[in-house]
Order: sequence, then C-alpha cells, then structure tokens
Amino acid sequence: MMPTLFLIPTVLAPETAFSVLSPQVRDVISRTDVFFAENLRTTRRFISELKTGRKIEDLTFFELHKDTPVADTRRQIAELKQSGRDAGVISEAGCPGIADPGAVAARLAHEAGMQVAPLSGPSSILLTLMGSGFNGQSFAFSGYLPIDRNERATAIRQLEKKALSGQTQVFMETPYRNNALLEDLVNVCQPTTLLCIGSQLTAPDEFVSTQRIAQWRNSRPDLHKKPTIFALGTF
Amino acid sequence: MMPTLFLIPTVLAPETAFSVLSPQVRDVISRTDVFFAENLRTTRRFISELKTGRKIEDLTFFELHKDTPVADTRRQIAELKQSGRDAGVISEAGCPGIADPGAVAARLAHEAGMQVAPLSGPSSILLTLMGSGFNGQSFAFSGYLPIDRNERATAIRQLEKKALSGQTQVFMETPYRNNALLEDLVNVCQPTTLLCIGSQLTAPDEFVSTQRIAQWRNSRPDLHKKPTIFALGTF
Repeated sequence: MMPTLFLIPTVLAPETAFSVLSPQVRDVISRTDVFFAENLRTTRRFISELKTGRKIEDLTFFELHKDTPVADTRRQIAELKQSGRDAGVISEAGCPGIADPGAVAARLAHEAGMQVAPLSGPSSILLTLMGSGFNGQSFAFSGYLPIDRNERATAIRQLEKKALSGQTQVFMETPYRNNALLEDLVNVCQPTTLLCIGSQLTAPDEFVSTQRIAQWRNSRPDLHKKPTIFALGTF
Repeated sequence: MMPTLFLIPTVLAPETAFSVLSPQVRDVISRTDVFFAENLRTTRRFISELKTGRKIEDLTFFELHKDTPVADTRRQIAELKQSGRDAGVISEAGCPGIADPGAVAARLAHEAGMQVAPLSGPSSILLTLMGSGFNGQSFAFSGYLPIDRNERATAIRQLEKKALSGQTQVFMETPYRNNALLEDLVNVCQPTTLLCIGSQLTAPDEFVSTQRIAQWRNSRPDLHKKPTIFALGTF
C-alpha cells in the first residue's frame, strides 16, 4: 500500500485539544511513528498530552521549520516512500501547510508519489472568515502586511479597495504588533469600512467582532500578544 | 449574558461525524435549542445522528437558504437577542459562512450585538489548500468559474497568471460539471503549471493530488458528481 503523509492540525489555544480536535486526529497520531515537526519540544508535548498510550521515545521526529534544508526533507520523504511508512506533519498552531513550513513536506510527498491526507482542524483564518459575516464566496489571505509604515498604509488601502469591490481580505500580524496594525487600520481606512477582528480563537476569551472603522475608533480592544486575524469585507 | 450565535460545521461525507467532527460540535448542539438550517430535513437528520439525547421536536428550526428573505432572519435574530437565547447555524456541508447563506446570520448577529462563535470543522477548501503543497501564505478562493466556455477560458488564464505570480488560486465547480472543468483546465493551462485536485475529501475514497497539467492530460480522474476543489499554484 502507498504510504501516506498526514497533515495533522494542532490546537490554537492551550488545553483545547480534547474539545476542539476531532477523534480522527488522535487516532492518526496513535498509529503513526514518524513526525515532521516545526518545533520538536512542543510537538512532543502535544502528542504526550493526547494520551494515546504511545511512548514518545518510540517515535521518530524530523525537524521541519523555515530553516530546514529542503534536501533533508526530500531524503526523509524518499526513505519513507521506499520503506512504505506513514508520517505526519505537525506545525506550531492550527493547520500545517497554511502559512507554514508544512507545505514543503506536502509538496515533496506529491513529487515522491506518496499519498497526502489533510485532516480537519482549527484554522484561525477560516474561523475568522466564518465568523465575520463577510462574503465567503470570494476571499483572499495575504499573510503579513509590510512593516514599513508607508508601505503598510499603501497595502491597507489596496486591501480596502479589493474588500469594497467584493473580495473579503484576510491578513495577520506578529502578535506583539497587533495594536499598531489596528491603529493603522483605523487611521487609514474609511469610517464606513467594515473590519472583522478574530482574536484568541478557541480560547475561553476568544472574540470575533465585525464593526465599522468608526466604531473601532471609539473602542479599540487590546490585542497585544494575542493571536489575531483581521479581515476587511462587505455585508 | 449576551446570547451567542454558533457557526456549526457539519460533515463533508456521509458517516464521518464521529471521526471528523470535534467533541465541541456535539457539545454545542446538545445545549442549543434554536438552529438556522440551510436544509431542514438534512439538518434534523444530522442532529439526530449525533445522538445527543435531545428530542428533535423540542428544537426550533429556522430556514436560512439563498431565497430566505433577510427581513425574516433579521427578525429571528432580534428575538433571540431580546430573549437571551443562543442559536446555531448549520449549512449543507462543511463550514457555515464559507460560500453559503450562513454568512447572513453572522452579519445580522454582529449588527444586533449578539456574540458570534465559529466552531472548527471540515472545509474542503482548506483541506485542499493544506494538501496541495502550494503557498499557504497567500491564496485566494474564487468560488465558481463562469459557465460560458470563452469566459471560463479567460478566467482560467487569469487564475493561472495569478498562481504563477505566487498567489495560490482555489476554485470549484458544480459536481456534475467537474469533468468539463478539468478538461478546460488541461486544455487552457500551460503543460508545466501545477494543478491540485482535492476530491471526496474526508470520505474513504478521498484524494488530494498535485501534478503538472501535462501529467493530468495523460491520466484524468473521473470527478463526475464528486465534490471537488481545484487549486492552481507553485512549489
């Protein structure tokens, strides 16, 4: 049988594995021996916390982060293919392959002729889009905006224009710069433009709120160091 | 306490609820009395199948499909807000609010000042993107392509161009036209362009495969009436 590379979602917030992850995630982890991990320490801890009965020391872990040489991962995938062994990819938060190094493993698995099986799980991008009330028939995710103040203002204006023309625009920021991005958004966008903020998703203090820029100007939430997704769109 | 509108994912494939949905989905359904449903019959059956112990006849269902007058949903949301009752939104497949009428309920809930809580679950768009190996840092979903042959060819060329410039392009077709779309894709795109096909996701016969157009020309899968997502991208 062709070996499978499972793309395995993890949690977005601590202590949510048993409520937010599907039984399939635990099941696949309990019968997989090899894992590509963005961070070895947190991945080992995540697998331990699932209490599948497997011993961590019996598992093989390969690092797969942004600095991992592609040649290393290619060789590891080739060996898995050869020996017929399944493997899993686990990233730092949410779904591997979405804005993270997991995509490299999926790509190399396709090139090597391994089967690729993505598992459902929490994605802060998708959760914010669902909760926004915006058009979900046409949307774009742009990752991080430029850091330079002027370039960022230009990027925000372009996103606002696309959002107003009907394509929902989803983007994010490094958590410690969230408040600065919100400041820029309320300053650059028109007062009537709709902004959705999805923050601390799946955590007890999560919130998803869509309001006009004029309303956000009056009451800005503190997003400092809180994982947050932003979306501009129309109703 | 502020009442909450839960956006509740359902399954993509039959008989997968117990493996693919998170415990949270069942938990929220077991303590919610009011549901907005895209299809009353399938939603009632879905809730029954979860065996939460709740009696279907004790629940209130509001239709929310593409022909539902917005004024009806607005009135229902206002009454829920007033009476402090939670409600759930359940669409036909996957995540409500992504390319379906659930977005209207989320929008009206924000306008009425209800809390909005999206729950994690299967999304064929996200699963295909995860499994594609393509850039997940920049992507766009465009829904359905034009039906007219010439307009569709033009749309495909535009998507290919955007994909080659680095933004992964995700789109879909009505299942009975999947083979015709694949035919158009292999005819219109360049031989070296990468196409990912994600079909029957979460079902026993699911597959996610990324190959160059030249390879797809040689062996086209039969996608007729099978729920499928297409993506163009680069490695």
